[in-house]
This record gives sequence, C-alpha cells and structure tokens, in this order.
Amino acid sequence: MSFSYISHLYCPKCEASYPPHRQAHLCACGSPLLAAYRLDELKASVRRSELAAREPSLWRYHELLPVEQAQNIISLGEGFTPLLPLPRLGRRISIPHLYLKDDGLLPTGSFKARGAAVGVSKAMELGVRELALPTNGNAGAAWALYAARAGIRSTVVMPVDAPAITRSECTIAGARLHLVKGLISDAGKIVAQAISDDDGLYDASTLKEPYRIEGKKTIGFEIVEQFGWKLPDVIVYPTGGGVGLIGIYKALTELLALGWVQGKLPRFVAVQSAGCAPIVEAWKNRQIESTFWPQASTIAFGINVPKALGDFLVLDALYQTEGCAIAIDDRAILEEQRLIAELEGAFICPEGASTLVAARRLRDSGWIQDSDSVVVINTGLGLKYPHVIQTNIPVIKPGDRLNSKIDATSRPPTPWEGIG
Amino acid sequence: MSFSYISHLYCPKCEASYPPHRQAHLCACGSPLLAAYRLDELKASVRRSELAAREPSLWRYHELLPVEQAQNIISLGEGFTPLLPLPRLGRRISIPHLYLKDDGLLPTGSFKARGAAVGVSKAMELGVRELALPTNGNAGAAWALYAARAGIRSTVVMPVDAPAITRSECTIAGARLHLVKGLISDAGKIVAQAISDDDGLYDASTLKEPYRIEGKKTIGFEIVEQFGWKLPDVIVYPTGGGVGLIGIYKALTELLALGWVQGKLPRFVAVQSAGCAPIVEAWKNRQIESTFWPQASTIAFGINVPKALGDFLVLDALYQTEGCAIAIDDRAILEEQRLIAELEGAFICPEGASTLVAARRLRDSGWIQDSDSVVVINTGLGLKYPHVIQTNIPVIKPGDRLNSKIDATSRPPTPWEGIG
Repeated sequence: MSFSYISHLYCPKCEASYPPHRQAHLCACGSPLLAAYRLDELKASVRRSELAAREPSLWRYHELLPVEQAQNIISLGEGFTPLLPLPRLGRRISIPHLYLKDDGLLPTGSFKARGAAVGVSKAMELGVRELALPTNGNAGAAWALYAARAGIRSTVVMPVDAPAITRSECTIAGARLHLVKGLISDAGKIVAQAISDDDGLYDASTLKEPYRIEGKKTIGFEIVEQFGWKLPDVIVYPTGGGVGLIGIYKALTELLALGWVQGKLPRFVAVQSAGCAPIVEAWKNRQIESTFWPQASTIAFGINVPKALGDFLVLDALYQTEGCAIAIDDRAILEEQRLIAELEGAFICPEGASTLVAARRLRDSGWIQDSDSVVVINTGLGLKYPHVIQTNIPVIKPGDRLNSKIDATSRPPTPWEGIG
Repeated sequence: MSFSYISHLYCPKCEASYPPHRQAHLCACGSPLLAAYRLDELKASVRRSELAAREPSLWRYHELLPVEQAQNIISLGEGFTPLLPLPRLGRRISIPHLYLKDDGLLPTGSFKARGAAVGVSKAMELGVRELALPTNGNAGAAWALYAARAGIRSTVVMPVDAPAITRSECTIAGARLHLVKGLISDAGKIVAQAISDDDGLYDASTLKEPYRIEGKKTIGFEIVEQFGWKLPDVIVYPTGGGVGLIGIYKALTELLALGWVQGKLPRFVAVQSAGCAPIVEAWKNRQIESTFWPQASTIAFGINVPKALGDFLVLDALYQTEGCAIAIDDRAILEEQRLIAELEGAFICPEGASTLVAARRLRDSGWIQDSDSVVVINTGLGLKYPHVIQTNIPVIKPGDRLNSKIDATSRPPTPWEGIG
C-alpha cells in the first residue's frame, strides 16, 4: 500500500519518460509533462468504497496524487466543493439536470487552490525553497498563500488589470509581487527571464511544472463521486490556460482505467470570451494547436489567455469526447452572473457565469438535449470581482422609513451599462 | 425516526413555551427564544457513528436542527469547514495545540451562511414570502442570497460603513437594500418600523427569530466531530451579536446531554474590539447584561455591535464555563491578520484575527496554558475587507527584468499606517 501510486512523468508529444523524484519542468522537446500512476497495482489494492470514510478534501484521492509522503501535504482544507443542483435556472434554460460545481468554496476563493495545494506540496517534497509564476491573479494568490504555509518564498508577476484583490492576497502572504503593463504572456516572459537569471527559482508556471494539473484533476474525481460514481453527459469549463479541462479529462480517464466508473466520457465544452477565443478558433478549424490571439480582452479576466501552452491537450480532449468550443460576449456573461444569483443564490465569478451562457446556447441549438446531465464549473467567487457589479443604493438617516418596495423601475442599472 | 427532533421553543428568561410549527419571534417577555429538542428520544434512536457516512455539510446534524421536512432545505453546500492546525503560529505564540476553525470557506464567504441556511430553510417551511433584517454586512449578504435561492424576497438595511462588497452581494441577489448613516442599532430600528408597517414582512433580525442560532451552533458540532468527538479546552470567538458563541455553547450542551461527547465544557472567550467592548465591560463587572456602548467604532466591522439582544446569554456562557472577555485594539488585529497569512497562508478577516491576538495575550498572562487545546474561530474571508490591506507594488513593462528580491526595506507599509 503506497500513499501515492505515481510511477513516472511522461511527455504526451514525444513519449519521453522522467522520474518523479527530481524537479522536472518541460520535456526536452518543449512539451508539458504529465504524471502517470501504477493503475493496475492500485486497482488490485484499493476499492473505491474505501474512500467514503475519508476526510472531505481533495486528499481523499491521495493514491492518484503525486505527493509520496503524507507529511509533505500543505493543506488549507481544500476540496470536496459542493455540486449544487440548479433547479430554477435549469427550468429557465430547459436543462432539467443542471449542476454547478462550485469551486469558489476553496481556500483563496478560486479553483486555483487545487493546483496550488498539490503543486506546493510536491514542491515541498522536492526541496524547493523559492518559486515563481506568472498569473492572471487567482493562481498567484493561491500559490503565494500555500507557499507561505509551506515556508517557501514566492515571486508573482501579474497584469496590472488583474483583479485588484489578488494583489492583496499576494502581499499579505509576503510574496514578491510585480505588476506588468501587459498580458499574462508578457508576465510569463518576465518570469522565464527571472528563472534563467536565478537557478534557485522553481518555475511554477502553468504546465511548466507537472503537478498543478494533478491538483486540478480532483474536480473530476469529485464530480464523479458526488454523482454516485456515475459520469455526467456534458462538462462545461471556462477555458484560459485550460489546465482544469485537461485535468478533469485525465481524471476521468484514470477512473475508467481503474474500473471505478463505467460508461462513456462526457462531452467537454471549452468556453472562452469573444474577446479572447484562440481555442474556439482552432476547434472550428479542426486544428491541433491554437494561434496567438492579438489584443486579447475580456471582463472574465481569468480566461484572458491569448495562447495556452496546453492548447493541444485541450483540443485533443474536445475531439476525443465529441465536445465543442464556444465564445461568449462579456455582456451575456454579466447578465447570466446576475440571473444565477437572483434565481439560485450563487454569486459566482464572470468566468463561471460564461459556462451557463454556453449551456443555454448549446441547449438552444440542440447540441445539449433535454435528457443530458450537465455540469458547469464555477472557478471562483464573485466576491473577487466587485467592480463588475454596479450598485445604486438609497442612503437614509437614522429614524427614516424605508422607501417603497423595490420594483422594476427602481432596480439598479444592469451591470453591463458603462462597460466599453 | 424523525428528520428533526425539535420539540418546542422556550424562553430562557421566563420559561414560557411556544410551538415550532408557527412563526415565532421574541417571547412575550421580550427575550429571544431558543429551540429545544427531544434529546432522550434521539439518544435512543441514533448513534453518533451513523454521522460518519453523511455528506460533509451542516445538514449532517439534521436531527438537531429545526427543519422538519428535508425538502425544505435551502442549501448552497454550507458547512463542515476546515479545522486547520496552526503549527507555525502556534510555536510563535507558545500555544502548541492551536487550531483555526475557518468559516471563511462557506457560501457568501462568512459564517453568516450557517444562520442564513437554517434560518431561510425554516422560514420556507413556515411559509414566509418576504423577510427583513438589519446587518453589519455579512448577514445581510447571506440572507439575501439564501432567500433568493428559496424564492423569498428580502429587505436589508446596513450601515454605510459596512464592507462595500456586501452591498454587491445583496444587490445581485435582488434584495431591497438600504444604507443608513449610522450603526447597526439604527438599522435595527428602521427594520422594526418597516415590520410594524407591513405585517407580511418576516423579522429575521439577530435573535428575533429563533433559528439563525440553530444554524450557528453547527460550528460547535463540527469542532467536536473534527476533534474526534472530544472537547477542546478553550474556544475563542469574535463577539458582536454573540449568536455564534451562544450557539456553540448550546451545541456542546446538547452533545453532552446526548452522551455523544464527555468531559468538561471548554472555557469560552468573547473577543471584542477596544472601540466597541460592551460585553467585556459587563464581564469585568460581573454583570448579567451589557450597557449600550456609545460611539462604537472598529475596523473589525462585524463586531461593531454596541448592545446585543443576546448579551445575557453570552455572559452566562462565559460565567458557566469559567471563560473570559477581552478587548483588542485595531492595530494589533491588523498586525495579526498579516502574521497568520505570512506564517500559515490563511487570509482571514479582521474579526477572525482578533481571536489570535486574544489567544496570544491570554497565553502571555497564563490564562491559557501550554497544554491547552485552543480553537479560534475565523468568521469570514479576508477578501471581504480589501481596504484594510495596503499594497505598494512595483509596476513594470513587458520585457523588463524583476527588481531585486524583496527585503525588509522594500516591504509595503504595515497595514495600520494611515489608519486613524
């Protein structure tokens, strides 16, 4: 019985293999590396029913995670987020079996905590003392805070336009933070330069270390377990770097290989913003890689990624599952963000809201059917994006009476008024 | 086997009794009402070991909650928040057995979700169509969002100085929101007037309906279960209205009566801000009630409550458990908020940070001993208070190199610089 059944790292492009006991980043061929596990051995020694009694965190799947010694785990209590039925919104958009996987309920308020928890824990196991990464905000916040808990120093570079609250998270964690007047791709180049200048700095950039994705894949394990060890028909994911989508796909493939779940893989939907849709464009043209998207811009800042290192893996998952990719405009995202709050009480981030617009449109077009069970992924708290909610609230004095009841005319302006 | 073992509501002051099947607010004598359960019957029919297989939410304790029909539950996936060991901070302040109950990891980002989930569910069961409450921000946000999920209309009144993000939460949920130029006590009077003007409006004010506290008490159940059905020695709680403290005390009393846990009740510590410390003042003078605190003001806005309706219950819990009450200044709160983020990676709210200052001081004075297991309660996300974190971050251009590594001189100013 091992704590982890990791066997090695492998390159999905050239099939080279690397040991998991040393720091590893990209393959010599330039591709990201993925972790492989001794699934046959695991299948013979652990039954999925043993998981039921474990603590409700992503570490309940430790055999399928890369950390080999339990004492290296750096945890803030992450994982096993709610899978919420959305009955009222589902009725509205004619998807009766609609569920929200709410990854806002993680430490640091976004799904980036999954990657950071596993990535930092493995970095700890590998003896890392200082790490660096570029970010659109949430990943930097998560890595800075988990690194602080591990006693690892962190360097974070993010666009000046990233959600302001993520600066506070990095700062309070004691990270070395820089803002760049540019995109995440510009931040990435600055981090790459810093790492080449200082070989004590561990590169924690998306897919440049192979363990963040292992954390992200636990979304897939949880969805299947919360579904009673069944697979939904469709999974809808807001796609920037795409690590979550690749991770969920990898997770479900592992569960099928273990025999812990049976059936057909869900169709994966990659949702992007109309202002930054390189994966959508590549998918439309049946390409295996995407092209850099110029002048990328969207209010759903987390998916403002003009060219993802793992684009070929995202596209492969779409093709393998007969999925699709769809671009959504910012105005529709903000309308949907308000609608799910009003109907279901969930205050989700714009990236998360984009998946509901996608589901609605794919249902309208018939791509999603009435009988399909559909899981949309919310990647973070609406709280992290206070600037997208416009409010216009009456101020009264002690002793005043309340104004008349709210009605259609006294409603605050719809949130997209005043946006570009 | 009942879903809930609630028997009746009772008045802790005059011992009057009320049925739980009708809307109830204060006792005729003016006191809050509390819920009683058929504990003997429950003890005979359910063993605590049966809980282990249940879902990790506060509804796992449904027998000890007031909702009688499962279909009335309005859930956003709340409860079973992490109980985090704080080894590095614990060493720093000489409390080796120090734990953080992190109630930031709840829907709406604060512990108010517990009260709102149970309170709104019970309101649903009682046929409520519209509710109203005064709030220091977080309770209003939680009740507005849970009410939205239930299809119940909500009216919220909060001070203009309440955390701004909670306005967005109320607004996006579709609540009728008013800001008042005053304190929560002023908001309370306005809500009371609105309710007397409109008898269709359900009063959801703190302790004016008896079920919010039933949601809050689940913090106590969870702490005990996460401790392996043992009691910690000390529980430290940031005290505004005090409902959580009363709730935890009630929960532990119920568990002891059931025989689900044995031993001595923990000593309860009520933490307040030096700018608003009516409970501390009353405790120092061994009074059974507090006196209205004039010109209340603190950065820990959630505990800016000049006179709590349940003050006598809070004080009783302190006296019964040989606990204490302690006031902390804002500067120390903000220093501690930074320290726990740097050492433990937890970005908690100022109210939560106040409990760590209290623990530190009580350890210094010898009131907490080396061998004591101490649980401090974090009531919300640091994210909800972005204005208290001062940042001063270098901005660079694409292609620039990073500045030299962070050191003591390049650190941003400590957060309390520029405050008052």
